[in-house]
Amino acid sequence: MAGMGARLGDASAPARPPVSDEAIGRDELALATRNHGLPLEALRYDLTPPGLHYVLTHYDIPYVPDGASWQLTLDGRVRRPLRLGLADLRAFPQVTTRVTLECAGNGRALLTPRPVSQPWLVEAVGTAEWTGVPLRLLLEAAGVEDDAVEVVLTGADHGVERGVEQDYQRALPLDVALGAEPEVLVAHAMNGAPLPPQHGRPLRLVVPGWYGMAHVKWLRGIRVVDEPFTGFQQAVAYRIRQRPDEEGEPVTRIAPRALLIPPGFPDFMSRTRVVGPGGLTLEGRAWSGRAPVTRVEISTDGERTWRRAGLAPDGGHPWAWRSWRADWTATPGEHVLSARATDAEGHTQPLRQPWNRGGFANNLVHRIRVVCPDPEELG
Amino acid sequence: MAGMGARLGDASAPARPPVSDEAIGRDELALATRNHGLPLEALRYDLTPPGLHYVLTHYDIPYVPDGASWQLTLDGRVRRPLRLGLADLRAFPQVTTRVTLECAGNGRALLTPRPVSQPWLVEAVGTAEWTGVPLRLLLEAAGVEDDAVEVVLTGADHGVERGVEQDYQRALPLDVALGAEPEVLVAHAMNGAPLPPQHGRPLRLVVPGWYGMAHVKWLRGIRVVDEPFTGFQQAVAYRIRQRPDEEGEPVTRIAPRALLIPPGFPDFMSRTRVVGPGGLTLEGRAWSGRAPVTRVEISTDGERTWRRAGLAPDGGHPWAWRSWRADWTATPGEHVLSARATDAEGHTQPLRQPWNRGGFANNLVHRIRVVCPDPEELG
Repeated sequence: MAGMGARLGDASAPARPPVSDEAIGRDELALATRNHGLPLEALRYDLTPPGLHYVLTHYDIPYVPDGASWQLTLDGRVRRPLRLGLADLRAFPQVTTRVTLECAGNGRALLTPRPVSQPWLVEAVGTAEWTGVPLRLLLEAAGVEDDAVEVVLTGADHGVERGVEQDYQRALPLDVALGAEPEVLVAHAMNGAPLPPQHGRPLRLVVPGWYGMAHVKWLRGIRVVDEPFTGFQQAVAYRIRQRPDEEGEPVTRIAPRALLIPPGFPDFMSRTRVVGPGGLTLEGRAWSGRAPVTRVEISTDGERTWRRAGLAPDGGHPWAWRSWRADWTATPGEHVLSARATDAEGHTQPLRQPWNRGGFANNLVHRIRVVCPDPEELG
Repeated sequence: MAGMGARLGDASAPARPPVSDEAIGRDELALATRNHGLPLEALRYDLTPPGLHYVLTHYDIPYVPDGASWQLTLDGRVRRPLRLGLADLRAFPQVTTRVTLECAGNGRALLTPRPVSQPWLVEAVGTAEWTGVPLRLLLEAAGVEDDAVEVVLTGADHGVERGVEQDYQRALPLDVALGAEPEVLVAHAMNGAPLPPQHGRPLRLVVPGWYGMAHVKWLRGIRVVDEPFTGFQQAVAYRIRQRPDEEGEPVTRIAPRALLIPPGFPDFMSRTRVVGPGGLTLEGRAWSGRAPVTRVEISTDGERTWRRAGLAPDGGHPWAWRSWRADWTATPGEHVLSARATDAEGHTQPLRQPWNRGGFANNLVHRIRVVCPDPEELG
């Protein structure tokens, strides 16, 4: 086909409408094999080891074997534009914050009809300790002009999406960027080590309480602007819409969610869980980016009845998941286990799917199918 | 459904026959979101950072926050059974070997009909430096009896598969287990750090040149046996069969494969690549577990013609991938780029799919679709 001419649209199609069949397409699979979720048994770790933390990359992971020459620019509506290397950033006060990060599209592949994009089930989450400089200190050093309204963050990852060639860019409202609780971080370390490549080496933004799209990775530019940013990832993607022609609401903070650590052991192919009969402790994690989680409930009878799980204190980490546990006696038969979180503002997980065209911020209760075989069946 | 009785078969179905439609099922997706491949741009790293290396876990990743109490047993047809902690293992001579590891099912999702299992495209690969004790030294310390024929390796991961409850177990022929070139390792470190949980913390087997199923993770038992092992992962799974009733050939060493580092930048959804017109260098990696790679060829015209790529020396790492490169001038239009490796034994990658029921050891040439837009289209 060489020499026949080509357009960017030959690589990049418009969004596919949501589909009503369960089957996943080749394009969704190509995303699922690149990106990865947290295997749910890894909910046991307070801090998720890097290779188990969920990862979503829109384009390619930039190749940065050595961050020594990396430059972060801070410009736009500021009095003193800055150009900062990693050593410059380390000269600012350093903060470490434990943060639960979740992809805005978590749960998408469970929706009917299914929005066509990265097909997450429920596992697009992880918790890490991020170390870096509070963004507000950088903005104070640069001197924000009075007419500033937003801060635009630019990553080094470059690609095309629905026909639009772009660097990955997102904006934060100025009050969030300047916030002191939580502090937005320009982070260079994860769990005490330099950022792994897939988590933004050498620099990324961390916005405690917000879905993952705000945590711009491979951060190379910060621009203070005097009118709202209308880039693709702000105005086109990451909007909650029922119809394609709506302006939609922006995706921002993480809705509450509880996940169960799957009990027993799995079947390789179906991932159905097998438990022996008798008493066991169900455990899991729960979080919300809107307000502290105040209640986790579980159901072991297909959601006919619910009861409260014991919720561990936040341990001084208000932006990270909390542990919960509840006892259960498994009896031979099939069971559906469910978990549901509620936060201090009264947000609670819905029992029926909260559908939107992008599959964003949907936090349907977590359900796990468990088979408890008759005792003589187990090895 | 509680109280109605249940069987292990309610969790674990027989293998699904291969399917002829492109669409991926929910069960395949559940595997794809847990496991993950190497994002192909990470072929740039000589040593794959842990979170980018492919991972396939049959059951759950065992939770081993501290390996200090881990015990590895070595028994069976030996004169002095051993029980070894990590400190005991560190008292043996330590060896570090650079090894390219590939899943036996790599490429499965490209087959028609498609075997139903973990739906890999081409990315189930990675290269790391593994440090540990040569298995032959442990076997020598234990004293192998004259009637021994195989060594059975047992992991701590437990599950059910096609109705069979099991710990993950595989066997190696005694001559492979005792081999000195390459040495099989009982490894405790990857790229100089303790094994990440998903790569077998605290101990795994590394069998240079063999597909991943042989590299038993979370290794807790080594048993020397006097007759061939017939466990599930040896006699039922990981066999090359055309019909379900065949005994089949065992899956062993890695067939040759070359992969391209995708040039240019991607479309988010289709992963189609976009390059500007002009000269560029195509690069990639190639490996074989059977014999050294001797030739890599590329095609930039949909496989009408092939030409040789430049192949880097192995750098003293005969069990790891080698770099290759070739120049190419992109012209406006659509192109299919292909890469093909050949090894010193004359094994070469097929141009048509090498089908078997499990989708194992299939090494179809790698093909990447590239769009080169007219210059005025690019940002």
